[in-house]
Amino acid sequence: MRFVLIGITVFLLVPLLTPIQGADLDKERAAILRIDKEWAVAAGEGRDVDRIVSFWADDAKVYAPGTPLLVGKEAIRQFVQKSLATPGFSIHWETTEVVVSSDGSLAYATGTNRTTLNDAQGKQIEIHGKGVTVWRKDPSGAWKCIIDIWNDNPT
Amino acid sequence: MRFVLIGITVFLLVPLLTPIQGADLDKERAAILRIDKEWAVAAGEGRDVDRIVSFWADDAKVYAPGTPLLVGKEAIRQFVQKSLATPGFSIHWETTEVVVSSDGSLAYATGTNRTTLNDAQGKQIEIHGKGVTVWRKDPSGAWKCIIDIWNDNPT
Repeated sequence: MRFVLIGITVFLLVPLLTPIQGADLDKERAAILRIDKEWAVAAGEGRDVDRIVSFWADDAKVYAPGTPLLVGKEAIRQFVQKSLATPGFSIHWETTEVVVSSDGSLAYATGTNRTTLNDAQGKQIEIHGKGVTVWRKDPSGAWKCIIDIWNDNPT
Repeated sequence: MRFVLIGITVFLLVPLLTPIQGADLDKERAAILRIDKEWAVAAGEGRDVDRIVSFWADDAKVYAPGTPLLVGKEAIRQFVQKSLATPGFSIHWETTEVVVSSDGSLAYATGTNRTTLNDAQGKQIEIHGKGVTVWRKDPSGAWKCIIDIWNDNPT
């Protein structure tokens, strides 16, 4: 009887532990890398603004160099539209590292990026940079980018 | 007897739950803000390199604008020493937001910064920026900065 009772008690408590201690961090890391790659492809193609913007959370913050802090989807959408309309603009990034909190709720990623745009003479120039993103799992289980910041490498 | 057994079982399992589900996020947030303020004071005074560098984790990464990625304490120490030796250099930052993962293991912070240095004519100029840090709780329970990135506002 005592073992049955212990069994029942453990049975009742284990579900409380599982969603947190049981987070499969390799799976979460792989999910973020996959989503981020899809995002980089959409941004690289530079056509579908709705799709590009969908990877950020509604309350995301974008810290772009030489630009005031952008807060929320509408400000970010305008920034994306303006970037895509810039002559010679293209963007490509590679995410090299993803670290997920032990409960699988928050993550950060680091990587490098390459942007092109035309200089005053209309010649396309390349800018190499490095960046950090922070990701949050939304209530539906989807990872969304909540912080996006980068800066340039030495020229 | 059955209640004693349940009591003992709960007693044994609760410590497993506590550090995770029981993370006091307000307390963790306050701890990071306090540590970050101490860090800002030390950096603002600009004298004690050991103390300034102690707020980063041994494997921290610093993403400074116009600088290659700095990985680890030694690279960061050299960067700090070089910055402090720059004529007219000073730094000040304000952290406005700290978000902690629900298990209290990882956090990010955002804020603004102001750097001064002398221009070519020896006149001190101010550069205003914005930045993001990522923090990890080390095994001793101390929060350390593991990612540090910032860029400039529009001039």
